[in-house]
Amino acid sequence: MSYAKNDFEFTFENHLLPKIMNLANYIDHTLLKPTATISEIRRLCGEAITYGFYAICVNGCHVAFAKKCLMGSPVKIVSVVGFPLGATSTKSKILEAKDSISNGADEIDMVINVGWLKSGKNDLVGEEIRAVKKAIHKNILKVIIETCYLAIEEKKMACTLVMETKADFIKTSTGFGSGGANFEDVILIKELAGEKVKIKASGGIKDRETAERYIALGASRIGTSSGVSMINSKPNE
Amino acid sequence: MSYAKNDFEFTFENHLLPKIMNLANYIDHTLLKPTATISEIRRLCGEAITYGFYAICVNGCHVAFAKKCLMGSPVKIVSVVGFPLGATSTKSKILEAKDSISNGADEIDMVINVGWLKSGKNDLVGEEIRAVKKAIHKNILKVIIETCYLAIEEKKMACTLVMETKADFIKTSTGFGSGGANFEDVILIKELAGEKVKIKASGGIKDRETAERYIALGASRIGTSSGVSMINSKPNE
Repeated sequence: MSYAKNDFEFTFENHLLPKIMNLANYIDHTLLKPTATISEIRRLCGEAITYGFYAICVNGCHVAFAKKCLMGSPVKIVSVVGFPLGATSTKSKILEAKDSISNGADEIDMVINVGWLKSGKNDLVGEEIRAVKKAIHKNILKVIIETCYLAIEEKKMACTLVMETKADFIKTSTGFGSGGANFEDVILIKELAGEKVKIKASGGIKDRETAERYIALGASRIGTSSGVSMINSKPNE
Repeated sequence: MSYAKNDFEFTFENHLLPKIMNLANYIDHTLLKPTATISEIRRLCGEAITYGFYAICVNGCHVAFAKKCLMGSPVKIVSVVGFPLGATSTKSKILEAKDSISNGADEIDMVINVGWLKSGKNDLVGEEIRAVKKAIHKNILKVIIETCYLAIEEKKMACTLVMETKADFIKTSTGFGSGGANFEDVILIKELAGEKVKIKASGGIKDRETAERYIALGASRIGTSSGVSMINSKPNE
């Protein structure tokens, strides 16, 4: 089954889109480009406080600095692991996750090992997720399945593997692959995951309407670098 | 000063290009895409043995397997660290490098922290390189400066910082950035590094003639996923 964006027009406009929503509460305010400077990270944190974003999402090297910038605020810190290729060793992912938590991260967004999944090494993929979750204890773990590289059966398998662990979220995309989130994938993930695992939609989400549609489809979190313009744009009423 | 590819035609054809060269000895036979399967890694290793490449270059999750595939052969194993964004923490880079060496890697290709460089945190950039080199002892360390993101003065600073450490190579590119190696950058790096630090040119190098030109300009190693077709093509005579 294939969906086009237009397939959702009727449904959304008549039934699903909430009239008012505190969109900022859903947003991981994200800056992951390799060239991000320290002053850009400072600004990211300031914006997160100003706009009331749920969290910021940064690379590991910026976690300790972001922690200082966000001191006393309710904004959470998300850091990425094995990012964006998902191809570091399991031990490296564990150590990286522990290091980010010890530097002040509240949540970890790890990338699955896509190559192992494509090689049928599902046991290794699942063990790795379990090991990272165990390493970060009660902190939230989101597992990025990087849908752009997966065939439909691989997407289903990836979701099944995440659901067999204690991970908290399935996240669609790194934003560095050949594609980002799309409605079709979020519908598929929601069908499989139900209420068991939450969904973070990310990658290429640039405007309020699109973000709200993902939330209506079941996403509990939105990863975007366009949070400020989303909030400043007129809400859907 | 700016160079175009054509600027080198006269120089190369008359003076610099060696008539015969064992190109395979210069090649890190590379497969870093996130979707690489175990059977593709096995093939990569087989090709490296068959064609006599200097090394293979793989992500950390594949090092232990590659070690088995290459058992008894002279082919070295290169693994990447902080790849491709260079934005993991210093501690994570150290732990990742040590893990890869313990799994059988001979050489580490680490990415510098581009964001710190752009923030003027040169001390942090240099300390990180020193720390990774110290962690891997006598194993070769190549430092990827990811030239595509750097202005000319930043390229010079990156080279200077690498040269102040005990790192063995300056490497131009990850192959995942907005651009790969170019002649102009390799000439610049050679001017700065002289004989003190070797050069690995990488990113977008697809044919024998281009590879040989980089070597003529001073590169001691070529990172490419096109090694087989390079060797199978007719040498420049």
